Amino acid sequence: MPLVRITLAAGKPPQYRRALADGIHDALVETASVPPDDRFQIVEEVAAENLVWSPSYLGVGHTPDIILVQIFFNRGRTVEVKAELYAAIAAKLQESPGVRKQDVIVNLVEVSRENWCFGDGVMSYSPAP
Amino acid sequence: MPLVRITLAAGKPPQYRRALADGIHDALVETASVPPDDRFQIVEEVAAENLVWSPSYLGVGHTPDIILVQIFFNRGRTVEVKAELYAAIAAKLQESPGVRKQDVIVNLVEVSRENWCFGDGVMSYSPAP
Amino acid sequence: MPLVRITLAAGKPPQYRRALADGIHDALVETASVPPDDRFQIVEEVAAENLVWSPSYLGVGHTPDIILVQIFFNRGRTVEVKAELYAAIAAKLQESPGVRKQDVIVNLVEVSRENWCFGDGVMSYSPAP
Repeated sequence: MPLVRITLAAGKPPQYRRALADGIHDALVETASVPPDDRFQIVEEVAAENLVWSPSYLGVGHTPDIILVQIFFNRGRTVEVKAELYAAIAAKLQESPGVRKQDVIVNLVEVSRENWCFGDGVMSYSPAP
Repeated sequence: MPLVRITLAAGKPPQYRRALADGIHDALVETASVPPDDRFQIVEEVAAENLVWSPSYLGVGHTPDIILVQIFFNRGRTVEVKAELYAAIAAKLQESPGVRKQDVIVNLVEVSRENWCFGDGVMSYSPAP
Repeated sequence: MPLVRITLAAGKPPQYRRALADGIHDALVETASVPPDDRFQIVEEVAAENLVWSPSYLGVGHTPDIILVQIFFNRGRTVEVKAELYAAIAAKLQESPGVRKQDVIVNLVEVSRENWCFGDGVMSYSPAP
């Protein structure tokens, strides 16, 4: 149920991009109760000039290796779970493929349970009562 | 008012991609009260390696022809309408360009009525009372 | 905190695309209380055939120079602020790089305060009480 979009400047090899996708998925599984086989991710590579970022915001400095991660998933995770998710994503991407923690930006977009169809033309989850 | 994003692996001919966009729009018009001329769609082609998907989730198997559809539209459609929309999108894309129903993934993201400007710098819909 | 996605047909020079990003950011700073250094933008260039738009909707005509702007930011801005934001974006892009006001489409997607990590693996804003 998460649909994950990972945006970065073009130029990194496939194994680097795959490690980003793997690390983010592992973090979701470990902290946010996402089933291991519930994985749908888009890696978006854009020209460096098409990625516009502040050199520093809230005291955190960024470099051209910045990664923008957008996670669309169901509403209802607690503030604590979200905080753990941010920490886990940063830790995993620092480990592999070796992204500076400061360069990992995450945005969560929450939707209703009935807002997903994972194939076959059917609503995948029963709506919240 | 829907803004529709259709993501697939690169390599399909223009008429295939156009049929995806046409089918999804027709489904929105027929099931979700979208005006025929209310059409704004982005077809996003990514390298096959940049589309990461589970071979099977919830018992539904996927192939490299998987299509990820994200529909941003106004809050307020019923669960029944959403279910009809999923069924209609899958049926239309199966008919043309011939996508397996299992390979059509849909995610709805709902926003407020006042969250749209369709040009001229003005709010396009009156806010909900 | 806004994450901004700017989608247009490929073929415009870098300075044109940069002017789009600059104008939208300036509009956010001037009307929507966005700090100047709170800037994260993705410019997405797609093949012209992958941008599907209605020639006219709600009486507003569009051309192949249409720009689709999606702004993900925190919930809570008033209807008045949103209206000012639309007007400011259109005015600024008309001035530079010279986009017809009719061709600027904006969609706002609102999220909770705790839905952002701007690096370092930490939740960037304290959650709403």
